Amino acid sequence: MALVVQKYGGTSVGDVERIRNVARRIGRTYDDGNDVVVIVSAMSGETNKLVALANEMCEFPSEREYDVLVSTGEQVTIALLAMCLQSMGYNAKSYLGHQIPIYTDSAYSKARIEEIGDKNIREDIKNGTIIIVAGFQGIDRHGSITTLGRGGSDTSAVAVAAALKADVCEIYTDVDGVYTTDPRIVPEASKVNKISYDEMLEMASLGAKILQIRSVEFAKKYDVVIHVRSSFNDNPGTLVMKEDADMETVLVSGITYNKDEAKISVIRVPDKPGIAAKLFSPLSAANITVDMIIQNVSHEGFTDLTFTVPNADYKKALKIVNEAAGTIEAGGVVSDEQISKVSIVGVGMRSHSGVASKMFQTLSAEGINIQMISTSEIKVSCVIDSKYTELAVRVLHDVFGLAKEATEE
Amino acid sequence: MALVVQKYGGTSVGDVERIRNVARRIGRTYDDGNDVVVIVSAMSGETNKLVALANEMCEFPSEREYDVLVSTGEQVTIALLAMCLQSMGYNAKSYLGHQIPIYTDSAYSKARIEEIGDKNIREDIKNGTIIIVAGFQGIDRHGSITTLGRGGSDTSAVAVAAALKADVCEIYTDVDGVYTTDPRIVPEASKVNKISYDEMLEMASLGAKILQIRSVEFAKKYDVVIHVRSSFNDNPGTLVMKEDADMETVLVSGITYNKDEAKISVIRVPDKPGIAAKLFSPLSAANITVDMIIQNVSHEGFTDLTFTVPNADYKKALKIVNEAAGTIEAGGVVSDEQISKVSIVGVGMRSHSGVASKMFQTLSAEGINIQMISTSEIKVSCVIDSKYTELAVRVLHDVFGLAKEATEE
Repeated sequence: MALVVQKYGGTSVGDVERIRNVARRIGRTYDDGNDVVVIVSAMSGETNKLVALANEMCEFPSEREYDVLVSTGEQVTIALLAMCLQSMGYNAKSYLGHQIPIYTDSAYSKARIEEIGDKNIREDIKNGTIIIVAGFQGIDRHGSITTLGRGGSDTSAVAVAAALKADVCEIYTDVDGVYTTDPRIVPEASKVNKISYDEMLEMASLGAKILQIRSVEFAKKYDVVIHVRSSFNDNPGTLVMKEDADMETVLVSGITYNKDEAKISVIRVPDKPGIAAKLFSPLSAANITVDMIIQNVSHEGFTDLTFTVPNADYKKALKIVNEAAGTIEAGGVVSDEQISKVSIVGVGMRSHSGVASKMFQTLSAEGINIQMISTSEIKVSCVIDSKYTELAVRVLHDVFGLAKEATEE
Repeated sequence: MALVVQKYGGTSVGDVERIRNVARRIGRTYDDGNDVVVIVSAMSGETNKLVALANEMCEFPSEREYDVLVSTGEQVTIALLAMCLQSMGYNAKSYLGHQIPIYTDSAYSKARIEEIGDKNIREDIKNGTIIIVAGFQGIDRHGSITTLGRGGSDTSAVAVAAALKADVCEIYTDVDGVYTTDPRIVPEASKVNKISYDEMLEMASLGAKILQIRSVEFAKKYDVVIHVRSSFNDNPGTLVMKEDADMETVLVSGITYNKDEAKISVIRVPDKPGIAAKLFSPLSAANITVDMIIQNVSHEGFTDLTFTVPNADYKKALKIVNEAAGTIEAGGVVSDEQISKVSIVGVGMRSHSGVASKMFQTLSAEGINIQMISTSEIKVSCVIDSKYTELAVRVLHDVFGLAKEATEE
């Protein structure tokens, strides 16, 4: 008898029939003798509808009220799923963020989980009840509703699994697992059987879109084994877990891309101490995550500063940067939304050299100009013109032999 | 400086533009130097969509989960309205039932308010904040979400007004006030300037659909003056308040009708003690409100029992009654959904005779058969075939001179 945490994403609960299928799967897991705690997202499309409503209401919606609004999507799903399970004869009970409670900080729309109360849930589990938890939402210390950012239900699931010391955290989605790259771009892409937390972190943060970054950080911190799998079949998926010896033999585990960032350059910035702080502090205060930052060598006391931000924050960031650029007497601000970040990821890079230069040569051979470069121990990322994204992913997937290696498994 | 509670119904907040209009009206009330607490319903149509979703999910949805589901409608509205007010430069903050808190009993989907905490609200009012409260919802002592039944936002508004000892409770709707009857049926119907709590109770419970019954009971109990008015213009509406001398001079104040009930008859019921209890206890246990009950004189130890229930509970009620009829060895159960209840209401009836017989004669003259009759001190109701509803309302409105009296005011 195990304690299984399952998370079902938006497409898995996209309509009444799919919710019924999810209920059957949950029922089977329970019938097999497991305690089951389920975390669900909003039905696919619902969160977008709510966001559109907020944007129709006003240009810069209050962040507190935005969270009150968008958290309703998950509330609908937990109610429907719980009533479906009950109609099938199971004891089931829905839980909202504040009912568990899932305490977070007050950073609306990207709150971080601070503490989870497990007392209420544990009592219900003991009574044989299947617990249905609203993902994506929590409550701050003032009792206000908070949300965890896009994909936040993954983090809800891992955090609940950690709090309950669950045996496994199954993340059900519309794909079979983690692939070497996006199969829509490279049909030969194949499923990875297991992947380390660090690789998954790079994959997720670089835009693989399978798991929210924070959920993987959480899983790494609390050693939660995540099983990413499809809700539409019974195939085993991808285990996200501690690094083991097998993983290092592979040079590159995956190729990822991200079109959801924009590039902002501040031109002719006076090159003196404190300038970067003046530029990035207001962005940080506005809770905007800056990804890559590049500062060129200075010429005659001036330098250029380029960085990327999520597209969703682009308008807000540009407004802030324009103000800051005035304050620091920079030459101007230019920006570009038509960019894409393509990356190669693999723990194998630590023990193999020449991986980065192979990437640069491959892109160059296709005539693709590299606008920015950033590297870590286990990944290399290049910002390119977004129109070359698919081409870049295909040639890199090919040159690092991912399709071949995967079929040899 | 007054404390004004305003409640806006579904059509008043039916879309983003209407919410903006409501925000402007709230802003004006605040700018006039008042403290303002606003209760809102779900955007028109939203609750119906959620109910349809529940019915699509399963035939008899769990009542607890049903409330979790349908309470999301109001949550959407409070968030949108609060962000709109903030974008207009006002301090505004949304409150869910559990954040106030509004404590109710645990009778899901028709819960009764037991207690309202005013501490959180009062602090925010003191800081100049406009309070936006989700109507229709509360929380029980176990922390589960409850809802107050259709029209429950009216009760939320009056209860909050009572808790805060507000100077007035303005109920904004899509009509100018309380009319002598439904103007869609009788174009000559006219607005009543003031009406007593008791008359309004009969009007509301008989299907006038302007205010939820319980809100009027609440207002009567705590002496809250309700001002029913339109959110689409600035005309004065109808004051619902303590009875005064003027009101008694009018014989009949209004004609109402209700098509939302169904009739169930249990045939050949053994006429002995305890039978009625065996029939009605399970209905009561299922939280089904039985309206009219008629038991005929018994023949040879058997009688017939006829009663009406809300259409929404009809299926459930019929199931329960069929079971109970078996237990008490009744002859059978027949039922009819095609009925309508037409009523005349007026405190003037207390001091005038012949009102009921005038009603019966009028219906008879039109060839309308009366299936059931029920009376109180200030109303007479007749159940008729629903196809005669409009005809009955028109002739009664005419014979009691309501159009004429109203224009003489």
